[in-house]
Amino acid sequence: MGKILNVDLSKRSINIESTDEKIAKKYIGGKGYALYLLYQVLKEKKDIDAFGEENVLIFATGPGTGVVGFPSPGRYHVMALKSPLTGSIGSGNSGGSWGPSLKFAGFDAIIIKGISKEPVYIEIVDGKAELKDASQLWGKNTFDTCRILKKGKNASVACIGPAGENKVLLSGIINDEHRAVGRTGLGAVMGSKKLKAIVVSGNNKVEVAKPEEYKKVSKNCLEKLRKNPVTGEGLPAYGTASLVNVINSVGALPFKNWQTGYNKEADKISGETMSKEYLIKKKACWGCVIACGRVTKVVKGPYQVPYSEGPEYESIWALGNDTGVMDFGAVIKANHICDELGMDPISLGSTIACAMELNEKGYIKEEELQGIDLKFGNAAALVELVEKTAYKDGFGKYLALGSKKLAEKFGAPDLSMTVKGLEMPAYDPRAIKGIGLNYATANRGGCHVTGYTIAPEVVGIPEKIDPLTPDGKAQWVKIFQDLTCVVNSTVNCLFTTFAIGAGDYAELLSAVTGWDTSEEEIMKIGERIYNLERVIINKLGFDDKDDVLPKRLLEEKMPDGAGKGHVVELEKMKKEYYELRGWENGKPTQEKLKELEIEL
Amino acid sequence: MGKILNVDLSKRSINIESTDEKIAKKYIGGKGYALYLLYQVLKEKKDIDAFGEENVLIFATGPGTGVVGFPSPGRYHVMALKSPLTGSIGSGNSGGSWGPSLKFAGFDAIIIKGISKEPVYIEIVDGKAELKDASQLWGKNTFDTCRILKKGKNASVACIGPAGENKVLLSGIINDEHRAVGRTGLGAVMGSKKLKAIVVSGNNKVEVAKPEEYKKVSKNCLEKLRKNPVTGEGLPAYGTASLVNVINSVGALPFKNWQTGYNKEADKISGETMSKEYLIKKKACWGCVIACGRVTKVVKGPYQVPYSEGPEYESIWALGNDTGVMDFGAVIKANHICDELGMDPISLGSTIACAMELNEKGYIKEEELQGIDLKFGNAAALVELVEKTAYKDGFGKYLALGSKKLAEKFGAPDLSMTVKGLEMPAYDPRAIKGIGLNYATANRGGCHVTGYTIAPEVVGIPEKIDPLTPDGKAQWVKIFQDLTCVVNSTVNCLFTTFAIGAGDYAELLSAVTGWDTSEEEIMKIGERIYNLERVIINKLGFDDKDDVLPKRLLEEKMPDGAGKGHVVELEKMKKEYYELRGWENGKPTQEKLKELEIEL
Repeated sequence: MGKILNVDLSKRSINIESTDEKIAKKYIGGKGYALYLLYQVLKEKKDIDAFGEENVLIFATGPGTGVVGFPSPGRYHVMALKSPLTGSIGSGNSGGSWGPSLKFAGFDAIIIKGISKEPVYIEIVDGKAELKDASQLWGKNTFDTCRILKKGKNASVACIGPAGENKVLLSGIINDEHRAVGRTGLGAVMGSKKLKAIVVSGNNKVEVAKPEEYKKVSKNCLEKLRKNPVTGEGLPAYGTASLVNVINSVGALPFKNWQTGYNKEADKISGETMSKEYLIKKKACWGCVIACGRVTKVVKGPYQVPYSEGPEYESIWALGNDTGVMDFGAVIKANHICDELGMDPISLGSTIACAMELNEKGYIKEEELQGIDLKFGNAAALVELVEKTAYKDGFGKYLALGSKKLAEKFGAPDLSMTVKGLEMPAYDPRAIKGIGLNYATANRGGCHVTGYTIAPEVVGIPEKIDPLTPDGKAQWVKIFQDLTCVVNSTVNCLFTTFAIGAGDYAELLSAVTGWDTSEEEIMKIGERIYNLERVIINKLGFDDKDDVLPKRLLEEKMPDGAGKGHVVELEKMKKEYYELRGWENGKPTQEKLKELEIEL
Repeated sequence: MGKILNVDLSKRSINIESTDEKIAKKYIGGKGYALYLLYQVLKEKKDIDAFGEENVLIFATGPGTGVVGFPSPGRYHVMALKSPLTGSIGSGNSGGSWGPSLKFAGFDAIIIKGISKEPVYIEIVDGKAELKDASQLWGKNTFDTCRILKKGKNASVACIGPAGENKVLLSGIINDEHRAVGRTGLGAVMGSKKLKAIVVSGNNKVEVAKPEEYKKVSKNCLEKLRKNPVTGEGLPAYGTASLVNVINSVGALPFKNWQTGYNKEADKISGETMSKEYLIKKKACWGCVIACGRVTKVVKGPYQVPYSEGPEYESIWALGNDTGVMDFGAVIKANHICDELGMDPISLGSTIACAMELNEKGYIKEEELQGIDLKFGNAAALVELVEKTAYKDGFGKYLALGSKKLAEKFGAPDLSMTVKGLEMPAYDPRAIKGIGLNYATANRGGCHVTGYTIAPEVVGIPEKIDPLTPDGKAQWVKIFQDLTCVVNSTVNCLFTTFAIGAGDYAELLSAVTGWDTSEEEIMKIGERIYNLERVIINKLGFDDKDDVLPKRLLEEKMPDGAGKGHVVELEKMKKEYYELRGWENGKPTQEKLKELEIEL
């Protein structure tokens, strides 16, 4: 039986409870288990303030996390009942070594509620947890915080930077200096609770239920990862940045706040250019054979960074392509500052791009800019605004609100490229239809990793389908969303799904947990998790009226590139999707909940 | 009779008292009167913590401030019993319009003690003062703060930025967005008191005692200002930046943390280059006929600033020449951020230069730098570190300590170019001896405007003397220090003394106040003020052991330029100076105090 640490920061109390195997069998762990716990809180409470004592933050691993030989087992998942950025559920996950280290410290998960009076951090060493004074750490950046707190066997630190402290709505949680739980503003939730960091270390052994069976399954899965063209070749060789040219070639690389999906200069910020000019080496998360992480540097000029990690494809797109900044050094610098001060590069880049369009279209008064020349392609403005946002300095105070509230404030809400208040990532669905349905229906808002249909629509895994047709996409979206729930509950890396499927996951989970599960059962669990999350966001006020896309994607025809002339046929796909889901008005029916054995 | 506002932030009490004419006749106003008040507090208290409730902060105008026709009457003086940067007295003054506006609001001075629980600001409108909640302003930069609070007739705002809030030891107070009380860390004192700003406005008339007499005296003095080559030609035409090439030509422009006093590339950051490439227009402080202020811009590149004020000679030197950064755009940007976030460019530039030398000499471990390439001439590092210092981010947390504590921390105290913990300004005394004696003996520490002997030693006002000889300098230093006390108590601009002397000041004060005073009496008041300030710093622990210069200036011969081969013969000058002052061991004797009618 695993252990869960239960922390109430208002009461300064710490309790340890055991995991409940009945719940684990229904929801696995990680995201699924966390959703179950969050729902129990939501049942009791009506109005949740994202910055109130009642908001609950859960850090969770799963049965796969930290298990040697498990496919890419270095991740953890974080959830909050409410995101301060979106008002929908808060959710994100991250690699590095923090997830495994939480297990080595003796815990599967941490539940945090309440608000501390003074800044604190949680220290967990070999099964013992303590609240410690963080007043000396408050104000420190994430690099300092990680370095100061990192002590002991297998130690790892997850923390917030100044952005989270300042409740910047797009702030994230940073672990191991450069790995981020970026999305939905979870750093601001930590900041509102005055929780600076969680440091974990220890010697706890992570064991598997059926060692012999596990050995075989593990070997088989790792073999599949190594042989797969994406996980065995593409990602190890070029990292996620290899997608820049690929997605541009299919006309789906959003340029200048999504005004188009093709940028003839995109190669300036591509994975190939990174490898040639900025790469130091590769770096893997704990126990991962893929090793898609990159270590980079900018050796001279105004945007020097002698050592950084990333930027990933998404960051390059958001901070570079979406803002029109083609200076790769500036993009690396901007991404580096996001890590340093603790912000989500996707949301921030997209928010800056939105501000640039607002400005170019005359919505922003000059005095509000305090001297920033806010135009597409201005590298200096980009780098300066990243820093300013973390401290809400000058125009940064508006960017700190995220794109939706920014565009509303300046009177042009349609220029915000968000779904449910979350900035969409780097794929224009006018050229890749399925991802559009996923954006619209993803519970946490505009998100690619809720149901990554790019795999079949562009990469051709498990089979190649036409990105430009809406036909048959609902089924793909549902399958990917459900399977992803399994991966985020297991908790390991989503990239494994390029090579291994639900059947492999069933075998892995059976061997690790000792349960006897099947591919069908696994997919049902995934569906159960997705539906429970939907029930929660329904209770938070989100339904079919929010399963939408920005007007631009529905009405403005793609002006050039491979998707030229296209818009997203969302209504058609959504209707089919709701039917497949057994949802009405964006809500699971009673029959569906009963079928999935979700007890409300 | 004038009025003084007495604010206790701990008790949230506000009282109004009248000025005491007996004290005014002995100390004029401004700095002199403030020193008298501070001394009354110091008599009662032994240990003053610069960030404690007991530290007292005084904002003071004088009889000349805000008087139409008075020479350059736009200034105010701020004092604190203790500077957090130096441990000696806190002192600084600033132009713009805040000083006159305090008078238009009905007050001559504000005394502030205690510490507020929550952030507050003081609003003073037409004789009425109120403490107001500043929680929404906390975290905002100085531009935002000034713009938000500036309301009403003659309104002006003095405030701190994030640097002061974060108690950065070299933070200043900014008024009118770009004017600064820069020196001795007074912004941090405001921050420690949780006092974000003071906004003043009103219609109070500032009248003079003898209008007819005043008319004549004023006319005469303004005429002298207009006809003088410095105040009538040099400063209006080129601003203070015109000194870059002048001081370099006499071999006294400190380069790369004072390793030498000559920089063959200095013209890249000169007043002439500013006029050619960066100047928008001139800008005068309230009521000033000199108009030495500059408005500048950097239109493109990584250090864009579409509108800034300054940089002054001192800022150009500290942020540019002293750090070896010859990119004028970067220097303007760095100076702009100092205004925006509220820091002293002299202390910050010198501290960065010190860090650069520490780094080049191997005193700083690479990991402490968090990726900053800290070498002389690196414009990117300069700009980034200015921002980081305000937020104590990464290596910025060390720079926030100022040069003395920084150099001590990294094990090479002699590399700090400070006197009494205050970073020295832009004149190397190996090539201009008198200013060295002034640096050593200035009560607030390494300061040029305590006794600006550059006037005779370089500019030739009131007469040209040899900068390279120590002979006769003690007398000049004493006269300049005493006269400057008068100017800072009057309170108007020191630049007037290029054109008008103690006799003019006696006439001006007689006409404005109605007192009957003379040149001799004026100089005696100046001496009284300087000695009272010395008594205070003696009580704070400073004496002849602190009237020193950095070793480099005493032992390392100037390597090139017009001062080549020279060191400062400090002991000889200091002995003569103490004799002239009537001091023993750096302390006024009882006879001297009696002679000056200073009652302890």
